[in-house]
Amino acid sequence: MISKNEKIDLSKIKSSQRKITSERDWDKFHTPKNIAMALSGEAGELTEIFQWLTAEESYEVMKNEKSATNVKDEVADIFFYLVRLCDLLDIDLESAYWQKVEKNLAKYPVNLAKGNAKKYTEF
Amino acid sequence: MISKNEKIDLSKIKSSQRKITSERDWDKFHTPKNIAMALSGEAGELTEIFQWLTAEESYEVMKNEKSATNVKDEVADIFFYLVRLCDLLDIDLESAYWQKVEKNLAKYPVNLAKGNAKKYTEF
Amino acid sequence: MISKNEKIDLSKIKSSQRKITSERDWDKFHTPKNIAMALSGEAGELTEIFQWLTAEESYEVMKNEKSATNVKDEVADIFFYLVRLCDLLDIDLESAYWQKVEKNLAKYPVNLAKGNAKKYTEF
Amino acid sequence: MISKNEKIDLSKIKSSQRKITSERDWDKFHTPKNIAMALSGEAGELTEIFQWLTAEESYEVMKNEKSATNVKDEVADIFFYLVRLCDLLDIDLESAYWQKVEKNLAKYPVNLAKGNAKKYTEF
Repeated sequence: MISKNEKIDLSKIKSSQRKITSERDWDKFHTPKNIAMALSGEAGELTEIFQWLTAEESYEVMKNEKSATNVKDEVADIFFYLVRLCDLLDIDLESAYWQKVEKNLAKYPVNLAKGNAKKYTEF
Repeated sequence: MISKNEKIDLSKIKSSQRKITSERDWDKFHTPKNIAMALSGEAGELTEIFQWLTAEESYEVMKNEKSATNVKDEVADIFFYLVRLCDLLDIDLESAYWQKVEKNLAKYPVNLAKGNAKKYTEF
Repeated sequence: MISKNEKIDLSKIKSSQRKITSERDWDKFHTPKNIAMALSGEAGELTEIFQWLTAEESYEVMKNEKSATNVKDEVADIFFYLVRLCDLLDIDLESAYWQKVEKNLAKYPVNLAKGNAKKYTEF
Repeated sequence: MISKNEKIDLSKIKSSQRKITSERDWDKFHTPKNIAMALSGEAGELTEIFQWLTAEESYEVMKNEKSATNVKDEVADIFFYLVRLCDLLDIDLESAYWQKVEKNLAKYPVNLAKGNAKKYTEF
């Protein structure tokens, strides 16, 4: 179910991140390069949760309290660094998102992409 | 500069992703396991943009048109898979985010974390 | 089939890497931090090859010439950076390997680990 | 210093891995897809060790006992999965390595690559 009106307040998240970072004197660590590394580390942790699961089992991760918390924590960490990177580099996340979707739709038209997972360069 | 009111419409993004996926008969590929893998692949591509840059240079990636587009595209791809995973697993991204931030703030109190990048287990 | 006597000549690989790097004046790029990033980028590319495949299909990647080459290239790139990192940090790869295997065997004794993929912390 | 004759015995490593895996009934988990995921998870952990370090600090990781052990453990884990993948897919790691180096040298001739980190597609 998609709620009708799920909006994420990015301004609030960014402000909070700036405060967290500056209070801890962490700005020197939060270079764009380091944030990209940190994001990729968290993506690796997300991967670890799923690595030994079958496709079917991967749908069930939220039924176990411990793995549900793990997944939510990793998703949150990735989002933390994604928003932080956008703030540092002044990227408008939503507009970057839709521009990329446009490109992808052009590269993967329904008639060519239907039912396969080929890369567009193979069409 | 943080805009006062930057809100991302997740409902719209999720609906669009469902439509894109189902029109292409891609639901069979979009298992949570596969989406986690795809996200980590995109995080790897983001990392590649920054890997040979110095800390200072990493602040300048948006000044070059080509690398700016690359960064925005990777950020968008990561966000695509992050939202897709939340939709598949029925995770409320914003609430997962704030819950994790709470945990982190408890693990990294200002007095202990200030000016260092130690892991909380080392405090 | 395991060949009886498959030995990799690391000295030769390291010497060659040093020559390649120094001839191109790349030593400034090859910091341990950057090499770790590069390795993770290549791991991301390896992941991308497998992300939409079923478990069964993943056994067949070498039957298609293009994907076989891709897999071999990514495996080679990961090994490049792994050996490079060991050289930069003066790590004896083989001894690090066996020491870690020892630890893992202690953490995953047959009687507890048999048939499951639990993390040792769950035993 | 490169030791004159550092050779890694891959046959021994592969045999040991097969034994470890089969004794624990882990073959069902060790699909090529899952091993690729696991490798990328370990690469993420390696990245985490370096993410907040400066380039200079990254050369010093082996001076601290704890971080030295962490680096060696991650390098070992990555190598474990890399060799495991080669065994599962019957890839000759050394020959894949040298073939890829050949390609890279052709893409990055000294005169074009010297002193810069441009991707070959930009030459």
